[in-house]
Amino acid sequence: MHDILQPHRAIEELKELRSLTGDVDGAQRVAFTPVWEQARAWLRDKLSELPVDIDQDEAGNLWVTLHGESEQAILIGSHIDSVPNGGWLDGCLGVLAGLEVIRRIAAEGKPRFTIKLVDWCDEEGARFGRSLFGSSAVSGALDIDSVRNLTDRNGDRLEEVVKRCGIDLSNINAAQTRIHNTSAYVELHIEQGPVLEGMNLAMGAVQGTYGVERHTIIFTGQAAHSGSTPMAYRRDALSGVSRLHLAIREIAVKHGGVCTVGIVKAKPGIVTAVVGEAEMTLDQRHLSADSLADMYQEAKEASYAIAKEEKIEVAWKTLWQIQPFPFHPDLIEMADQAIVEICGRSHRMPSGPLHDAAEVCRTGVPTVMLFVQSLYGISHNKIEDTRAEHLVASVQVLDRLVDKVMNWLGKV
Amino acid sequence: MHDILQPHRAIEELKELRSLTGDVDGAQRVAFTPVWEQARAWLRDKLSELPVDIDQDEAGNLWVTLHGESEQAILIGSHIDSVPNGGWLDGCLGVLAGLEVIRRIAAEGKPRFTIKLVDWCDEEGARFGRSLFGSSAVSGALDIDSVRNLTDRNGDRLEEVVKRCGIDLSNINAAQTRIHNTSAYVELHIEQGPVLEGMNLAMGAVQGTYGVERHTIIFTGQAAHSGSTPMAYRRDALSGVSRLHLAIREIAVKHGGVCTVGIVKAKPGIVTAVVGEAEMTLDQRHLSADSLADMYQEAKEASYAIAKEEKIEVAWKTLWQIQPFPFHPDLIEMADQAIVEICGRSHRMPSGPLHDAAEVCRTGVPTVMLFVQSLYGISHNKIEDTRAEHLVASVQVLDRLVDKVMNWLGKV
Repeated sequence: MHDILQPHRAIEELKELRSLTGDVDGAQRVAFTPVWEQARAWLRDKLSELPVDIDQDEAGNLWVTLHGESEQAILIGSHIDSVPNGGWLDGCLGVLAGLEVIRRIAAEGKPRFTIKLVDWCDEEGARFGRSLFGSSAVSGALDIDSVRNLTDRNGDRLEEVVKRCGIDLSNINAAQTRIHNTSAYVELHIEQGPVLEGMNLAMGAVQGTYGVERHTIIFTGQAAHSGSTPMAYRRDALSGVSRLHLAIREIAVKHGGVCTVGIVKAKPGIVTAVVGEAEMTLDQRHLSADSLADMYQEAKEASYAIAKEEKIEVAWKTLWQIQPFPFHPDLIEMADQAIVEICGRSHRMPSGPLHDAAEVCRTGVPTVMLFVQSLYGISHNKIEDTRAEHLVASVQVLDRLVDKVMNWLGKV
Repeated sequence: MHDILQPHRAIEELKELRSLTGDVDGAQRVAFTPVWEQARAWLRDKLSELPVDIDQDEAGNLWVTLHGESEQAILIGSHIDSVPNGGWLDGCLGVLAGLEVIRRIAAEGKPRFTIKLVDWCDEEGARFGRSLFGSSAVSGALDIDSVRNLTDRNGDRLEEVVKRCGIDLSNINAAQTRIHNTSAYVELHIEQGPVLEGMNLAMGAVQGTYGVERHTIIFTGQAAHSGSTPMAYRRDALSGVSRLHLAIREIAVKHGGVCTVGIVKAKPGIVTAVVGEAEMTLDQRHLSADSLADMYQEAKEASYAIAKEEKIEVAWKTLWQIQPFPFHPDLIEMADQAIVEICGRSHRMPSGPLHDAAEVCRTGVPTVMLFVQSLYGISHNKIEDTRAEHLVASVQVLDRLVDKVMNWLGKV
């Protein structure tokens, strides 16, 4: 039945796109740039042989529709934009695998359900710092006033830049109708982490995207001379950072989530002075909203206890928060089965990074993602790579999953 | 016998010097600047009424000599230079208290032993980063080639700047003869720490200056995405800093020294990345060379053990090392007695900061220092202060100590 599917063609097209839109430093398909528009023009050209409708919505998302017997649709999605100096797979693998699946289905005649492919606009947020631009416009989560005046490194305003790409911010909410009639959403993406490689597995079924608690924590003690201040007289602000960093590692392990201290700043920051003020960031992630709330609460309590013991002050400032988006249990089950059928073994895992799938999930559409192994766990870098046999398998699994979802929709 | 001593005159002169050479931001007597030269001209003017020789040596130190029956000399020393925006007492208290003691002795006729006062040149090293310039030239510890090309923030070279102040670097070693015939050295200084204030004591007898081990420690792990990298897969370089920071605090307490982490740098330093490389400085100080060596060794071993457990790498780079300079036991005893006689109670304590006294001690001259309480333990700042009654007592104690040393020299 699937003889028409040619996974190697998808890989060849990925390489063609890399040649067209990358350089020695990696992929350069940053959203709203000429290279990104060139990538999309190339994609439209690839689609021109297929019996599909192609159009760009009010938020800059590119929609490909293969009409079926029913307007009820299965949506395949990903993004063709990249970070600057990015990898050759992040985002575009899902788009080109989706293209290959649509080719296969179209070759078999009019499908029972409508099949759509969406290339989300500016998933990376590399230019203006707001990721998931297009998908959050569709979900209704994009606060237009908060993005209007974002500027890129040249000082160009987001509102002006997107206008040149045919996007009118004042009309962007109209894109929300695009998700109507969507009965399921599937997205294939590279893992961007070390788990599948560490387990020697090709692919995993994603259970959902982590919720995130992201905060800056500032400890204030008293700067003092490193020679003249005995240990017992010190109010060392850095002790807050050191102790809380070790505490949040234990909290993460206890709850099965992840907690990271990425930034540390110590003032006055001279070799002969006890630290008077120490700042750290904390990034906590969990698939369970309850566990995330517990991790946050325990970290906060730990910081207060540490501050009291060290005779220093502590203050928390929220940087960003998002709830977890658990995917649909039936779709996770089908994704898992499709992987087992093609690859032999599967693994159910959360997604640490956010993806457009989270925004689709937010609208209530049953959602699932497939992860394929990343070599060295590295992405957003020109050395990002995945074994050829895993890429082939990923196209086959996506195809198999769409079939399973079609059957599932027929039953519900 | 001491009715001639007028401690209040020394305090008035400190205030006069503050008005002349300070501004709203504090003292501005940075060595080799016009304000510093103005301070020295003012000091020479104060000395002009006394039966003393005054001259500047080859290293820029200003020597005041009150000849006695014997050429064998008691040397009183401190420094009139300050850091930029410095306090009104750091350094110049010792010089002006010494002036007052010399006035008292001169008024009593020719003393049994020669009494000298030295205003050391550039104790602070505020302009070129090399502290104890003049005193280390006298001790022979100044490496001329290593300082010749030091530059200030304007790019001016030390060699050129000091030449304008009459100092020829190639001839600086000739200043080493100045310490000949010196049988004892005494220096009064503000504590610059919180110990005496914490114990509610006016003054302390200093046992010596701490030895210092100062190093940069770099931990190397693997930068990784905060969302996609489970805790068990991480090689978090920051864990090295956090754990070693807590370890060195325990090492300091165990050995009765001080250990400080003043600088922390985390790379890549972004909120969503596990730290791949973390750098810290470590400053360890102890009065005992053996204990200092133990503290250093234990910190190093702790860092290796932590690195092994965390699966990260560690490397040490030496920034600076100096041995402890323990002062003379007889002089410490006399200093302690003088304090008890004037203030009622005394305390024996190490000096955390270095002082010119360390360089004199290095030459083998019996040395001691007196500390007077600093309010809030703060110095190198315009809010640096000491209670008026403590300043009065400090001049009286220095005077009493010089008398005791004179008697001691008569006996040895």
